[in-house]
Amino acid sequence: MIRMNEHYKKLQASYLFSEIARRVRSFEENHPGRPIIRLGIGDVTRPLPEACIGALHEAVDEMGDADAFRGYGPEQGYAFLRERIAHVDFQARGAVVDADEIFISDGAKCDTGNFQELLAGDVRVAVPDPVYPVYVDTNVMSGRTGEFRDGRYDGLLYLECTAENDFIPDLPAQPADVIYLCFPNNPTGAVITLSRLKQWVDYARENRSLILFDAAYAVFVKDPDVPRSIYEVEGARDVAVEFRSFSKTAGFTGLRCAYTVVPKECNVYDSKGDPVSLHALWSRRHSTKFNGVSYPVQRAAWAAYSDEGLEQITALRDYYMKNAAIILREMTSLGYACTGGENSPYIWVRTDGDSWEFFDSLLTRAAVVCTPGSGFGRCGRGYARISAFNDYERVLEAMGRIKAAFS
Amino acid sequence: MIRMNEHYKKLQASYLFSEIARRVRSFEENHPGRPIIRLGIGDVTRPLPEACIGALHEAVDEMGDADAFRGYGPEQGYAFLRERIAHVDFQARGAVVDADEIFISDGAKCDTGNFQELLAGDVRVAVPDPVYPVYVDTNVMSGRTGEFRDGRYDGLLYLECTAENDFIPDLPAQPADVIYLCFPNNPTGAVITLSRLKQWVDYARENRSLILFDAAYAVFVKDPDVPRSIYEVEGARDVAVEFRSFSKTAGFTGLRCAYTVVPKECNVYDSKGDPVSLHALWSRRHSTKFNGVSYPVQRAAWAAYSDEGLEQITALRDYYMKNAAIILREMTSLGYACTGGENSPYIWVRTDGDSWEFFDSLLTRAAVVCTPGSGFGRCGRGYARISAFNDYERVLEAMGRIKAAFS
Repeated sequence: MIRMNEHYKKLQASYLFSEIARRVRSFEENHPGRPIIRLGIGDVTRPLPEACIGALHEAVDEMGDADAFRGYGPEQGYAFLRERIAHVDFQARGAVVDADEIFISDGAKCDTGNFQELLAGDVRVAVPDPVYPVYVDTNVMSGRTGEFRDGRYDGLLYLECTAENDFIPDLPAQPADVIYLCFPNNPTGAVITLSRLKQWVDYARENRSLILFDAAYAVFVKDPDVPRSIYEVEGARDVAVEFRSFSKTAGFTGLRCAYTVVPKECNVYDSKGDPVSLHALWSRRHSTKFNGVSYPVQRAAWAAYSDEGLEQITALRDYYMKNAAIILREMTSLGYACTGGENSPYIWVRTDGDSWEFFDSLLTRAAVVCTPGSGFGRCGRGYARISAFNDYERVLEAMGRIKAAFS
Repeated sequence: MIRMNEHYKKLQASYLFSEIARRVRSFEENHPGRPIIRLGIGDVTRPLPEACIGALHEAVDEMGDADAFRGYGPEQGYAFLRERIAHVDFQARGAVVDADEIFISDGAKCDTGNFQELLAGDVRVAVPDPVYPVYVDTNVMSGRTGEFRDGRYDGLLYLECTAENDFIPDLPAQPADVIYLCFPNNPTGAVITLSRLKQWVDYARENRSLILFDAAYAVFVKDPDVPRSIYEVEGARDVAVEFRSFSKTAGFTGLRCAYTVVPKECNVYDSKGDPVSLHALWSRRHSTKFNGVSYPVQRAAWAAYSDEGLEQITALRDYYMKNAAIILREMTSLGYACTGGENSPYIWVRTDGDSWEFFDSLLTRAAVVCTPGSGFGRCGRGYARISAFNDYERVLEAMGRIKAAFS
């Protein structure tokens, strides 16, 4: 008899974003013609940079030409893209990362979800709270947790991120083998300084832990004291993997491209305590379960690193950050305590009450959609996330409506 | 301490295609200027169909236009593509498959590799021998096997495909919970009749087994007695999942698009023996660990189903099948027993000796690259796979060289 992976039974059925969609649909049905402004899901709205569009067209023409056509590419990605990433995102900023330590993929969601496969089934997992649900759910699916009770899974170590610690988790009181960190943070928008991040790297070195560092929002960091990459911290290459994405950087949510950095020095250990190269393991997984990213898409990502491309993605970043500044200013002026919005496209708003009540109130009184913080974990209760990813005019309109309804 | 998934240690380090690449490189170094013809890896060489190129350009323009731009798409794929697939590949051929049973992905390699995650860790796995290595390796990684000994992993049930059974495996003598089948077969090129396939479906129904049916090469089936889809067999919807790909159909190896069909009736069982919907489980995995296929690529796949597109992919199929016919004819005339090449782009050649010796002899005497059958499993010893995926002129030239060297 074919039996299921019963760990799936522990997963919570009602996914945050489907519940949001349900409530929005119901509102729309009851208020036909009332235009809704969505500042909920972190999806970009601006078109792709021109440099990427040009590169896509050229690559498509190659795929239609017998002499230029490309079939299977290298599973780890084309060298032309890996080299530009290594140079622009790391070496030019003083971080040591080589091109062959970069694995191109079709999304940071996939990479952060898949990476745990390389680890033993009983390693102790630490996740932030609030948290991007993918880190948790993929460990549930793999059987590294017990049941779900009062908003948390047994067996996971939750790193609380609250106003008291400026949304930067304290080092764990119990030993953690693998630690998920995300900065700039989704959902809180918090960023971490170099010195605070160094404490985590030192902890991982002392405890032989592994840090899975999600830097999907790195491009939004403007403050020079705030690292974009964990490899700006000394010693991180031995203990950290970093995930990056073109989704928010270059508007690739519908195009699909991301990458993961696995330094050659980074080891995991077998049951005898002998070191094993994590780079070799990820490479084996990547070539066994993945077949590379679409060639035209890799060309588009490559073009984002041209002089013209870099100028355009900076303009795109600045566009969304202007939105973030408006949201932060208006919500603060309405008396809400906020974090994020400065080196991050997310504004984390203290709602002083139930997250879903705030969500409903924003929806019914202003026809604006946010994300209830409680959907990200127990420490998200009493908060809401507002996203800067929308058109400028819409954000202005949304803030005007909120001001009119709430002041 | 961060410990590894030790099942990875069981994997065989020397991957077939990297060993081939090593020997080819060494030959090239020793014979500079001697042009090699590659009939080894099954990668396409012809450009994308014009209909797909046109659709790609249009979709790229949409991504550069603020009004038409698309961000995150549905994880399961766009309805425009799922509906065309359901209609053309199934309903028009008399097989019942609905659009919402189709999950678009970036490759059949990923899907056939990932699907086992939904199953219990101790289900009994049956794989063909010879076999596409991904089925085996992904089960090794998940801990469903013991050690590797004399070409096989302990704990797997190998379904032998030999000349004696026309390369169609017999029903297993021991009970199997999940059964991988691939027709038209990679690597043997064998196809299965409707009545033989029905025996497998009946077996699965009686034993509550699950069939994972890899039909990546379905487009090459011309014979009306040979099913393209397992859903042409009555009762298959309860017990079978099917994997398809645009890689060989439309030349998408470098573009990346595939799909998996999970019928709503298909169940797995929990430890109490209660049925659980496999469709719901795969949907949960897909939305947790995957973020959809690139929008322009989905448009290209969609265009392959237009009248113009269907004509072009048929022409592409016929082009490669002309190659297959030449290879089959010439190898047969040289006295080699062959299978495949008629409803399949692969020709499985009995080498009457060691596979690697034949590989080396083809390489050194004719500068032609094939794939040694032993790389696909113990039953592949004494065979070699020749692929029809190359330009017509090159295939002609390769066969001329082999004829001159071997007759």
